[in-house]
Amino acid sequence: MSAAGPEAPTVVIVGAGFGGLRAARALGRAPVRVILLDRHNYHLFQPLLYQVATAGLEPEGIARPVRAILRGQRNLEFRMAEVQGVDLDARTVRTDAGDVAYDHLVLALGGETNFYGVEGAARHGFGLKDVDDAVAIRNQVLRCFEEATLEADAARRRALLTFVVVGGGPTGVEMAGAFAELVRVVLVKDYPRLDLADVRILLLEASSRLLAAMPPRLSAAAADTLGAKHVEVCFGAAVEAYDGSTARLRGGETIPARTLVWAAGVRAAALAGTLGLRTGPQGRVAVTPTLQVPGHPEVFVIGDAAWVDDGGPPHPMMAPVALQMARAAARNIMLAVRGRPGEAFRFRDPGSLATIGRRAAVARVHGLSFTGFPAWVVWLVVHLVQLIGFRNKLVVLINWAWDYFFYDRAVRLITRR
Amino acid sequence: MSAAGPEAPTVVIVGAGFGGLRAARALGRAPVRVILLDRHNYHLFQPLLYQVATAGLEPEGIARPVRAILRGQRNLEFRMAEVQGVDLDARTVRTDAGDVAYDHLVLALGGETNFYGVEGAARHGFGLKDVDDAVAIRNQVLRCFEEATLEADAARRRALLTFVVVGGGPTGVEMAGAFAELVRVVLVKDYPRLDLADVRILLLEASSRLLAAMPPRLSAAAADTLGAKHVEVCFGAAVEAYDGSTARLRGGETIPARTLVWAAGVRAAALAGTLGLRTGPQGRVAVTPTLQVPGHPEVFVIGDAAWVDDGGPPHPMMAPVALQMARAAARNIMLAVRGRPGEAFRFRDPGSLATIGRRAAVARVHGLSFTGFPAWVVWLVVHLVQLIGFRNKLVVLINWAWDYFFYDRAVRLITRR
Repeated sequence: MSAAGPEAPTVVIVGAGFGGLRAARALGRAPVRVILLDRHNYHLFQPLLYQVATAGLEPEGIARPVRAILRGQRNLEFRMAEVQGVDLDARTVRTDAGDVAYDHLVLALGGETNFYGVEGAARHGFGLKDVDDAVAIRNQVLRCFEEATLEADAARRRALLTFVVVGGGPTGVEMAGAFAELVRVVLVKDYPRLDLADVRILLLEASSRLLAAMPPRLSAAAADTLGAKHVEVCFGAAVEAYDGSTARLRGGETIPARTLVWAAGVRAAALAGTLGLRTGPQGRVAVTPTLQVPGHPEVFVIGDAAWVDDGGPPHPMMAPVALQMARAAARNIMLAVRGRPGEAFRFRDPGSLATIGRRAAVARVHGLSFTGFPAWVVWLVVHLVQLIGFRNKLVVLINWAWDYFFYDRAVRLITRR
Repeated sequence: MSAAGPEAPTVVIVGAGFGGLRAARALGRAPVRVILLDRHNYHLFQPLLYQVATAGLEPEGIARPVRAILRGQRNLEFRMAEVQGVDLDARTVRTDAGDVAYDHLVLALGGETNFYGVEGAARHGFGLKDVDDAVAIRNQVLRCFEEATLEADAARRRALLTFVVVGGGPTGVEMAGAFAELVRVVLVKDYPRLDLADVRILLLEASSRLLAAMPPRLSAAAADTLGAKHVEVCFGAAVEAYDGSTARLRGGETIPARTLVWAAGVRAAALAGTLGLRTGPQGRVAVTPTLQVPGHPEVFVIGDAAWVDDGGPPHPMMAPVALQMARAAARNIMLAVRGRPGEAFRFRDPGSLATIGRRAAVARVHGLSFTGFPAWVVWLVVHLVQLIGFRNKLVVLINWAWDYFFYDRAVRLITRR
């Protein structure tokens, strides 16, 4: 079956996110046997997850079976399994479906929501890192509207209709913008008996500006656009506790809100901290500039779970980093197979984008900053192109076109009780 | 807000399935206030549920928010609430969101899977009546394939790859046919390491033919078509017990199978049996020919939950009956509002259809029986036309076209653990 011979070294890749998938593909013609492990049977396009949370896309539109993506790759075997640990000395990955031996290991574990230990936030708030999170938010928002129509008490009704987004990074900004459009464009028509003045969407940012990685001009533009969409953007606002009905800010202010989405931080997946490897900022595993674990050159770590300990700041936890690290790790594995030393990873920043709704976005691409309609078009094209699989592109494009022309969000279903 | 005056009588409709929704619409211009209750916020197009279970459609494609469907109806209010009981004397429906008073009540409760008390079937088998059922089946089938790739023991692997469908009615026939295509058309490509000879799909029917409501010629055609798709159709096969790994048939034969889908029966929703009303076959509430509860002319029962106690056989539990009863009940309510007696319900059978896969179906329409490609085209058109909402039609059509031309089932994701 395999293009590689029986004596070919085995490369085990843990995780089928952006990094793991790219690494698997980059090794497609290499004289190695690749075993890709993931606890899900699909690859998820996380950048559009907030659109699932705001009823714009169905989860199936942004997920694609790993076996479908990698069907043509002869040297690859996919196994759906939950990784429980790694025995570095025995060179074995332990999973719930048995042990898997490796010659080279690529850990592409990804990230998870970082609640920073804020009291009650993990328990009562919503993260936004996987399909379940997104569907849970969608259910919650729609259920709050349903309950609000039946709630006679004005204060309780306002709490049901107050939605707090914590964190003014790209995820928080996109989430708040999409929320605002869902409410003002679609839900007002669904709930004619509700008073729109009762609906509040707050975006809380602890620092003094949004999108810290963008030029100040774009940060200001994002805040203005959100304000025009009736999002209350609050700076210097740090959440200290949340109990499911009230958020308490540092300074003592309280906000009655039944829904709180936590978009204030990401850290490496918990598994990264259990491997007995040295970790750094955000729980990320320390690696050399060649992305190898010191003392274990056969182990590579890439993406959100990796911290290149070279004295510089950690790389941002975003897809472009994971994709570029994946290519670098694959290249270094191929060099190692041929007995040659690896090359240092160098990140080339392609820029960043955030959309804030209809015809509104901010973009920094190859040094150019722009906003409004042009940025929105760039955002659309970039995301469509990167989405894996022609069918997913088609489904997402149709959904976008439909919602754009009909001012609709069709997927507003409350599922899973 | 309402088109009806404040003194207009209140019609409460319980259930937003085919019957409830149609009744609500039929009262759109009547001088009444309509309150529609459902525990979900969406209407589900149940006839295509088996395609969700077999990874052909996403749930969102066959569900549509009730508020979106009925947005234009001025005399209607929708409330998402779980009905807990009815106080017939006080004319009040009790729900988890408070009591709702009525002048006229339409109970469109729908049906649920009838396991006939077969030992273990309800616990270990899968019904197919709502979105959760369908997604659970999809997850189970795909997970069995994933586990089978990692299972070294041959007997256990075969049990993982044996899928039993119980009941040779339309649901069982369509399910088995779609299963067979999913496996032979798509999954063989996903799992090149699995031996297809290990995969068995069995359709167990207790009587001596499939599709008992169809002419014998169509029953035979359905069995032939399924056979050609490698479905093992077994007649005289009644399941007596299922423990999650082995099905035991009457007569003692056992079938090791990790998946069993129960399509052998439907009964009225459990709520129907808790209202203190007289029930008949399949737990359905006995009503007069005018669809009213004897002694409570203000209460109507329609669809799967209704049994017209007129000496004839009960109506089949299918959408056309529910739709026609809904129109009849709405008409009788309008007559009652004007102080006039109701008219007896008479069912006009439009025929029935069952599809068995690519270019294969059986159809009995207005007395005409036909099979193969023409029946398949009729099936496609009828289902697309009946699907509510233009967007859903579009989404389903694109999915069908995609799967047809590319021999694909794109929605093969394992979600919800």
